[in-house]
Amino acid sequence: VKTQSVIQLKPIGWVRAEFKQKFCTPRQGSIAKSSRAWIELDPTWRGRGILSGLDAFSHVWILGHLHLSVQTRQRGKIRPPRLKGAKMGILGSRSPHRPNNIGLTLARLIQVEGDRLEVAEIDLIDGTPVLDLKPYLPEADRPEVFTSGWTQKISEESRAIEFSLEAERDLDTNTTDPTRIKRLIVEMLSNDPRPRAYLNHKEADFFVWVAGLNIKFRFANEQFLVVSAGIS
Amino acid sequence: VKTQSVIQLKPIGWVRAEFKQKFCTPRQGSIAKSSRAWIELDPTWRGRGILSGLDAFSHVWILGHLHLSVQTRQRGKIRPPRLKGAKMGILGSRSPHRPNNIGLTLARLIQVEGDRLEVAEIDLIDGTPVLDLKPYLPEADRPEVFTSGWTQKISEESRAIEFSLEAERDLDTNTTDPTRIKRLIVEMLSNDPRPRAYLNHKEADFFVWVAGLNIKFRFANEQFLVVSAGIS
Repeated sequence: VKTQSVIQLKPIGWVRAEFKQKFCTPRQGSIAKSSRAWIELDPTWRGRGILSGLDAFSHVWILGHLHLSVQTRQRGKIRPPRLKGAKMGILGSRSPHRPNNIGLTLARLIQVEGDRLEVAEIDLIDGTPVLDLKPYLPEADRPEVFTSGWTQKISEESRAIEFSLEAERDLDTNTTDPTRIKRLIVEMLSNDPRPRAYLNHKEADFFVWVAGLNIKFRFANEQFLVVSAGIS
Repeated sequence: VKTQSVIQLKPIGWVRAEFKQKFCTPRQGSIAKSSRAWIELDPTWRGRGILSGLDAFSHVWILGHLHLSVQTRQRGKIRPPRLKGAKMGILGSRSPHRPNNIGLTLARLIQVEGDRLEVAEIDLIDGTPVLDLKPYLPEADRPEVFTSGWTQKISEESRAIEFSLEAERDLDTNTTDPTRIKRLIVEMLSNDPRPRAYLNHKEADFFVWVAGLNIKFRFANEQFLVVSAGIS
């Protein structure tokens, strides 16, 4: 057995995303169909054609360094939110709290524009260092026969979401694309992002920054109400 | 724009595989259906249940540090073997010669046995440090609609492979699983692993170590002949 040696990597670029906090950032990009982000190459990789050919693929793997998922102690097991308290080995899950906090996101490629690319369907926070980008190759990445383990049996609790008149007006006033941002907020809230400790605080107001907006929401009568979407 | 800072990672484990050299190691695990490997956890991660739950999935992503793909200079474009000389941006390909040489392999999971797991369909060389293992989640990793870019138009040149009587006898004598090893050799050679510089050396003999065997083969009459499969 080899001894554990350190591997040093340098980001090839950075995610510029609408998600600014871990709170409410979707668990997987596939849940956040309405999300948009840019990936900008690090200056050392610009002007060298490194993205050439990528634009012909519909999807791209983003290997991101989940820089906010820093643990002071490393557990072997975690409690995935969807399992409501049950434990699972870290490597049996896609939790960001893993030994090497590398995330694997299959994003939809919108466009390559010189040395940056625009993607949709991401679960990455603004400022995430990018370690690698790879085209989605069906012949390698898409097995014909597969089973999907413990995630298969979970029925997602999809919460209903209402927008107050104030929130609707805020979105119209404060964004250039209110329809998409509204969809994005629905995607962010529908899987219920509230921390477990808050599930019984029925009257709590929550705040989250997204796409330059400060979203205020609360949970009442078994559904979410988006109260406002201010810019300050 | 942030400055480029170094990210330090430690292997969580190591690949124990039958491939010992870059030469003839298949380009993708999906080509090497008959390959087998074990992944052993680093001692720091043993006995902590980190693999718990993984056994319920049919496939696992292996993020390997491609330790033999070390470049002295980093190019923006490479010439993928399948493009026969044409250039492609590194990030538009799955070439191992990439800025951060992390490989993404979707392996078929055979079994989890305590703190190690057995996999098939791998393209990784013995001793590859493992940075992460993740379950294959169809809901996140399997888009309904996709296009696969420049790889779609390539017709694989599948070469015929013959085994000499000596090679057949060697395989029967020197391995416990000659049928599978024979299939594995076919998978290794059928996409023509010869370096471009050797394509016109019609009489050259090639040697490759795999599964404890020293395989000798040559290319003649537009097909491969496996000459012998010795153990020394």
